Amino acid sequence: MRVMGVDPGLTRCGLGAVEGRPGAPLSLVAVGVVRTGADEELGARLVGIEAGIERWLDEVRPDAVAVERVFSQHNVRTVMGTAQAAGIAVLCAARRGLPVALHTPSEVKAAITGSGTADKKQIGAMVTRLLRLAEMPKPADAADALALAICHIWRGGAQSRLAEALARAPRRNPAR
Amino acid sequence: MRVMGVDPGLTRCGLGAVEGRPGAPLSLVAVGVVRTGADEELGARLVGIEAGIERWLDEVRPDAVAVERVFSQHNVRTVMGTAQAAGIAVLCAARRGLPVALHTPSEVKAAITGSGTADKKQIGAMVTRLLRLAEMPKPADAADALALAICHIWRGGAQSRLAEALARAPRRNPAR
Repeated sequence: MRVMGVDPGLTRCGLGAVEGRPGAPLSLVAVGVVRTGADEELGARLVGIEAGIERWLDEVRPDAVAVERVFSQHNVRTVMGTAQAAGIAVLCAARRGLPVALHTPSEVKAAITGSGTADKKQIGAMVTRLLRLAEMPKPADAADALALAICHIWRGGAQSRLAEALARAPRRNPAR
Repeated sequence: MRVMGVDPGLTRCGLGAVEGRPGAPLSLVAVGVVRTGADEELGARLVGIEAGIERWLDEVRPDAVAVERVFSQHNVRTVMGTAQAAGIAVLCAARRGLPVALHTPSEVKAAITGSGTADKKQIGAMVTRLLRLAEMPKPADAADALALAICHIWRGGAQSRLAEALARAPRRNPAR
């Protein structure tokens, strides 16, 4: 499956697409950022984010989109813009009928490094290793987007297999 | 000028359009809410909000859109969805090249009632009086959207006149 990860932000929105399935080598499809200017009006920034994500969806043609779940405990000054960029990513994917998953930063860290409290450098190092890249993707937002995509392939894969197994299994206790 | 106010929310997004200018009677153009189900996925909800706002913009054809500015101090459980609904309203307006203004709840309260700490009932009562309605618009989100539109007509009008006067005035001290 091909997953596009989105590390949302107004100034830098990290985007990264990965192809793979659980238990097999992963491969990089594309990585980059959509940037908007801090001096632009909010409306223009959101339009820029939407256009950038749409262009990526057109080119990458992912099977699913994974977006970082934004919490209000984050940096209060920027969290609203981050939530809005995340909302636009979810909107763009849902408009195309693509499945969308939200993963928390600690879910991503735990999936990629084994520790929910890993730092940015560790995430970057693991993404570089897992995708067999010559160097660490930059900026950190781009590496984080790849980490989200990998997390989704691994977690989503497990969840889909569980769902499939449950769907196949005879219902012994069809309570409710 | 015709202003569409948006009181953002995922469950109920209040929309209200008002026609008027500072110092003249105001008139109601339309009022209502776009609703999405709490049981729907986030993506489907955001698509529903976008479709509802687009339909309103097509029908109301406002000159400007006023959206409530969302703060992270609000209800933490719902603030992310509120911020995302607000972001979609800003996006829809900006895509059409419409001017977008964000007003804080206390700016709206102060504009409509003279007090930045007025309660919902007081806002509803003033909206009803200012628009010469037979009864208070319901739900409160719809009344709040009208209050935003009125606030924008009054504040925006004053701001435009100031900007025009400054543009006309000879620059005596062009020091930054």
